[in-house]
Amino acid sequence: MPVNLTTPVAAELLSVSGVSLGIAEAGIKRAGRKDVLVIKLEDGATVAGVFTTNRFCAAPVTVAKEHLAVGKGIRALVVNTGNANAGTGEQGLEAARRTCAELAKLLGCDAQQVLPYSTGVIMEPLPVDKIVAGLPQAVANLKTDNWFDAAHAIMTTDIVAKAVSKQVQIGGKTVTVTGISKGSGMIHPNMATMLGYIATDAAIDQPLLQQMVREAADKSFNCITVDGDTSTNDALMLIATGKSGARIGAAERAAMQAVVTEVATVLAQAIVRDGEGATKFMSIKVEGGKDEAECRKIGYAIAHSPLVKTAFFASDPNLGRILAAIGYAGVGDLDVAKLKLYLDDVLVAEHGGRAASYREEDGARVMQQSDITIRVELNRGTAHVTLWTCDFSYDYVKINASYRS
Amino acid sequence: MPVNLTTPVAAELLSVSGVSLGIAEAGIKRAGRKDVLVIKLEDGATVAGVFTTNRFCAAPVTVAKEHLAVGKGIRALVVNTGNANAGTGEQGLEAARRTCAELAKLLGCDAQQVLPYSTGVIMEPLPVDKIVAGLPQAVANLKTDNWFDAAHAIMTTDIVAKAVSKQVQIGGKTVTVTGISKGSGMIHPNMATMLGYIATDAAIDQPLLQQMVREAADKSFNCITVDGDTSTNDALMLIATGKSGARIGAAERAAMQAVVTEVATVLAQAIVRDGEGATKFMSIKVEGGKDEAECRKIGYAIAHSPLVKTAFFASDPNLGRILAAIGYAGVGDLDVAKLKLYLDDVLVAEHGGRAASYREEDGARVMQQSDITIRVELNRGTAHVTLWTCDFSYDYVKINASYRS
Repeated sequence: MPVNLTTPVAAELLSVSGVSLGIAEAGIKRAGRKDVLVIKLEDGATVAGVFTTNRFCAAPVTVAKEHLAVGKGIRALVVNTGNANAGTGEQGLEAARRTCAELAKLLGCDAQQVLPYSTGVIMEPLPVDKIVAGLPQAVANLKTDNWFDAAHAIMTTDIVAKAVSKQVQIGGKTVTVTGISKGSGMIHPNMATMLGYIATDAAIDQPLLQQMVREAADKSFNCITVDGDTSTNDALMLIATGKSGARIGAAERAAMQAVVTEVATVLAQAIVRDGEGATKFMSIKVEGGKDEAECRKIGYAIAHSPLVKTAFFASDPNLGRILAAIGYAGVGDLDVAKLKLYLDDVLVAEHGGRAASYREEDGARVMQQSDITIRVELNRGTAHVTLWTCDFSYDYVKINASYRS
Repeated sequence: MPVNLTTPVAAELLSVSGVSLGIAEAGIKRAGRKDVLVIKLEDGATVAGVFTTNRFCAAPVTVAKEHLAVGKGIRALVVNTGNANAGTGEQGLEAARRTCAELAKLLGCDAQQVLPYSTGVIMEPLPVDKIVAGLPQAVANLKTDNWFDAAHAIMTTDIVAKAVSKQVQIGGKTVTVTGISKGSGMIHPNMATMLGYIATDAAIDQPLLQQMVREAADKSFNCITVDGDTSTNDALMLIATGKSGARIGAAERAAMQAVVTEVATVLAQAIVRDGEGATKFMSIKVEGGKDEAECRKIGYAIAHSPLVKTAFFASDPNLGRILAAIGYAGVGDLDVAKLKLYLDDVLVAEHGGRAASYREEDGARVMQQSDITIRVELNRGTAHVTLWTCDFSYDYVKINASYRS
């Protein structure tokens, strides 16, 4: 069950002028499931994105990067669920290109102005005929107030849809930012995570937009993990339509970045809260490091440890497992006698061992919570990171032992 | 249940002249469980070892390394289960030193001639008084034909004891090698694994012995993983008593190394076969790499992926997950179009996607087996590695969610 996460309220999701969304049931997944989403952009929108670093990156990732590089101006994005179109070789690239071409025909633009995305099972041929047959239904459904349904259409093993809107005043104009994401397993983004789409009606030139999506990803999707598996299909896209009349330059950058990063963070955390089989949401803060890289190493060692994750599932303060993970994180000159480990506000370990003040009942009390902060104070510098992860339960095994059946 | 692994036959475990073993019930674990082992060596034995690289290494690891460095000649090793004496700070070091001192008194040697080892829960104070009180019982029990009981005395979550003997003719003399190991979870050795002790009656000078234990570890214990968690207490020790009269020099090295590595490999594989919750044993061969480091990266990415491990638990040939793991292993210039993936003798993927000849029923047939080989042919060099791991089941979660209770 999702941890402190509920379905977004449809009425709280704000339209972004210049963006319309349409969904379809193309029959890729079982009957009655929406599995195709088209996002149509008005002329003049800028689009930037970050993608998976997985060498087996999916065909749509390759094609989306190609089309972005062409620079003709993006007019539409198309997403299918139920099949990742990854590990599909040349045939997969052709299928992704054909999807773009067919949608371009319907919208009256060039195939290179369409970006494709897929998510689902790896190494199965994409049922491209079904997707193509579903495109007219999605185009007929295009409307600006369709973010709620769009968030549902991109779900795979997600239990809860992920969407959020924020508004900010910039240069006297109201700027809206609305985003959706999907993801629950195979989550350890190394660029972005499964799929995330954020749109704003601010006007942002493409080079700046690219910097902003990179920074937002680094502080949100690149700080989460469910199972340490980096997907073949990760993509986070940022769209700026300019329709609000607010133009973002150097002076407005900080305010705009803050709201984009905030939306990305809500969406990224939602993926962890809806992590496969999750019963607990853990924030892992590693502070006082020499650099951010070593803080990330230690944070991810804790976040990926099956022993730590199963102890949290059991609400068992078997916290020595966290020390072991810190120890094997690969920080060669780490002095373990200097660090402190906290569970929420409870000091657990210092001087290389259990803190004299630590009482098992204090650890047990915090472990009962559904939201828990693990904080490691390294005391060797000023760098810090915060990562988010979930626990490891019977249901994670159940979900992943039966995903295809 | 252990995968194709049965309890060793006591009569097949050969004594090693110059080594006697004694066990005790010291009450660290629940009543009726042997939890202390003393290994006594006759004067003149050489001892070498490799230890965990975990920065939170346990107090006994620190003390064992100190005592080995003193170079007075090791006369005894002492092992307790039920408590790892890791994450225990100064108090833990004192407890380990006191254990050595007390055993030295009983045996009439120096404390620095005793090496301590611990395994069990992390960050709990070592019940050193109980261990000290149990030492006379262990010393009274010392005998050369006690390897079977010794293998049982060092078990923690292990279901099956791990022990093996081999003999080899060297220079006209019969040389015996007998080893024991323990381990089932927190297994991703980065030096050695949990605890392994191998003894031979060959005569081997300490510097050569150190080279030999390193090489054996690199080809055995350093090629296994259960859950990717590198323990705080890993140690693999190699003891040479010289009692057979066979002296190992440059000419005899290869033959001796082969049998030591063979014994180490049997013991290491036994740990994976008895991995927590294991139902399948997987050999992962990565071949045709530019260097061994990249082969290991790819092999461990597969071996650690919870998605791959749960698919094997389910006997589900959802083999795209293996491609995804290869892709995120961190080999930046990997050309995925060049590699081939095999499951036993079945070609699964080539040219960046599913092989044209691949049939789901062939994958499903192999997935039903309890011993399975995953082979990745990278086609970019001559380096290769073989790693061993197990699947990820409900029982892994169950065991680790209830380990302390």
